[in-house]
Amino acid sequence: MNKTIGIFGGGQLGRMMAQAALPLNIQCCFYEADTHCPAAQLGAVIANQAPDALQQFIASADVFSLEFENTPLADVDQLIQTQTLYPPRQALATAQNRLLEKALFDELAIPVAPYRAVHCEADLEQAVAELGLPLVLKTATGGYDGKGQFVLRERADIQAAWQALGPAQHLVAEAFVDFSRELSIIAVRGQDGELKTWPLAENHHHHGILSHSIVPAPDSAELQLVAQDYICRLLDRLDYVGVLTLELFVTEQGLLANEMAPRVHNSGHWSIEGAICSQFENHIRAVAGLPLGSTAMVAPTVMVNIIGQYPDSAQVLALDGAHLHLYNKTERAGRKLGHITLLPKDSAQLSTLCQKLAIILPEPLALHAEIDIQHGAVE
Amino acid sequence: MNKTIGIFGGGQLGRMMAQAALPLNIQCCFYEADTHCPAAQLGAVIANQAPDALQQFIASADVFSLEFENTPLADVDQLIQTQTLYPPRQALATAQNRLLEKALFDELAIPVAPYRAVHCEADLEQAVAELGLPLVLKTATGGYDGKGQFVLRERADIQAAWQALGPAQHLVAEAFVDFSRELSIIAVRGQDGELKTWPLAENHHHHGILSHSIVPAPDSAELQLVAQDYICRLLDRLDYVGVLTLELFVTEQGLLANEMAPRVHNSGHWSIEGAICSQFENHIRAVAGLPLGSTAMVAPTVMVNIIGQYPDSAQVLALDGAHLHLYNKTERAGRKLGHITLLPKDSAQLSTLCQKLAIILPEPLALHAEIDIQHGAVE
Repeated sequence: MNKTIGIFGGGQLGRMMAQAALPLNIQCCFYEADTHCPAAQLGAVIANQAPDALQQFIASADVFSLEFENTPLADVDQLIQTQTLYPPRQALATAQNRLLEKALFDELAIPVAPYRAVHCEADLEQAVAELGLPLVLKTATGGYDGKGQFVLRERADIQAAWQALGPAQHLVAEAFVDFSRELSIIAVRGQDGELKTWPLAENHHHHGILSHSIVPAPDSAELQLVAQDYICRLLDRLDYVGVLTLELFVTEQGLLANEMAPRVHNSGHWSIEGAICSQFENHIRAVAGLPLGSTAMVAPTVMVNIIGQYPDSAQVLALDGAHLHLYNKTERAGRKLGHITLLPKDSAQLSTLCQKLAIILPEPLALHAEIDIQHGAVE
Repeated sequence: MNKTIGIFGGGQLGRMMAQAALPLNIQCCFYEADTHCPAAQLGAVIANQAPDALQQFIASADVFSLEFENTPLADVDQLIQTQTLYPPRQALATAQNRLLEKALFDELAIPVAPYRAVHCEADLEQAVAELGLPLVLKTATGGYDGKGQFVLRERADIQAAWQALGPAQHLVAEAFVDFSRELSIIAVRGQDGELKTWPLAENHHHHGILSHSIVPAPDSAELQLVAQDYICRLLDRLDYVGVLTLELFVTEQGLLANEMAPRVHNSGHWSIEGAICSQFENHIRAVAGLPLGSTAMVAPTVMVNIIGQYPDSAQVLALDGAHLHLYNKTERAGRKLGHITLLPKDSAQLSTLCQKLAIILPEPLALHAEIDIQHGAVE
């Protein structure tokens, strides 16, 4: 009766997947370098350095998934000879390569910022000429949390940009997007093709790291329909099973897709308390072949990341209705250590809570900014 | 920074405590006979048969609690020589003995059914004479889920009752309570004396086993205030820390206390999804010395027990908004294997869900009965 899901990676996303899986009598195990990883308290960790580790992992579970979008395709290829992986290999391969990803967006008529593939310095010069400045040069593979990117502001930056990123060989130059807001939509697809989407999150970053997400994104009723349409095209085209995230920019030309993540996402952590069924539980349900749960919102929610240093737990828990999620990681600058979920009664309470949190958190990121929510905006 | 809580017992209550503790970076360990107990997936189990097991357990955590109200007082006495136990020893000792418990209720002016201590057959005859029939004879210690009880319906039952329970020596005879409903109130007290209570649950039993709980108990606005008053008297008098449950009867003479349980309780499982902070998280917060979370209700909730045999998970999860909690136990008649939480939109949806559940569950217990909820009854 019990099922085991093998997960590539054992960080906080795997930890929260396993937390959602246990009440369903589903056990997770993890393929991960660090046997003291955040997920280790919830399931066996198979250290991925040993020579036969991958074979051992492949033999250890009934079905497989991932929490790490840079899971090596070579490992996946070995796994899928005998086992099933959700999401499917193609989704992973596409998400790992910005050029493949943009080609897929183009194929599905999901708008993206104008871009050019760049394989040599001359390509970059041509891209600057055609797309104008500023321009963002990105490696096609390996980028994460703002790494592997270079913003060109004038023609003189071309050489420096090429020197910084050229060795990666496969690059993409993107026209600078003049966006007013960053949103993300998260959706889940079951093995029978059932689709469900959560409300749009509005994401606020600080130096490339997610600071906080507001759900539902203010004034997003129409955007929600557009974003749902885009992500459902992706899910169906990829014959996807599990949770997929699509990051979007709000521009004067409408929503533009930034990138997709073939996994549960930091901007979906609000759903543990804020939605009837969380992204973690629905991902587990999909991978295990169970019916999906409702993605409806319980109440407007704000999720705040804990970065670099832990706050005093007692101070956080003294905030009315605050939920604390710590990942059992050691402190390090820029590292995601946990998150806090707020389900404020109204904008006034949210404002108070955020002011207090900005004092309590050692690294308040973008929390000083004005935050507002809209009750009753999305059903 | 991380804390470990040592818990006497490792059943489903310990399992759900540990599930609530992990996001707070609090680890639990368990003192328990069965190393494959439900809590074993979430923390170390110290097998309690080994000669030095108790010393090992005492050395294994920063602070201690329990999920098992029959935790031996001898073990507790050894523990509290060097360590702290929440709830305090006196609460445990009182709850383990119906005579001490009723004396405490009397002292605090919490009404109970008329009763007599019974130490010999003559005491029982006198109790029948004074309290009338029917009469319930119970062992003062060791009773659980309807065991250790004998209902006397006529004078001729006296001998049989005495033969059945007399060897226990310490007995209590209680006047039969003509009650319309069974309710329970759950409350939590912090180390600083902070008190919080959840809404009353209306509990429906089947052959002495809890079938389902409805929260808030219908028509309970006034009863809530009375029940809160009673349980707060107990918490303060016992200098209690953690979660306490008080079972109550609704009678024509008002609320009568049945018994207290010095622990999280089956009738509080609804609070995982139905309250802002669950009984499990607040118990952990109290034991760890953290501020308590809000016990306010998210929405009216019904909790249904899974007894004896597992249902098909997929059928349960296909129910709109249903949450499934399985305890990783093997099937056995009468055994609590899991529970299902429903947060219906209205009475009509609740009725539909319960009709479906009565078909899906191999042992539907009292679920065939009319179930109703009241939205907006308790804030």
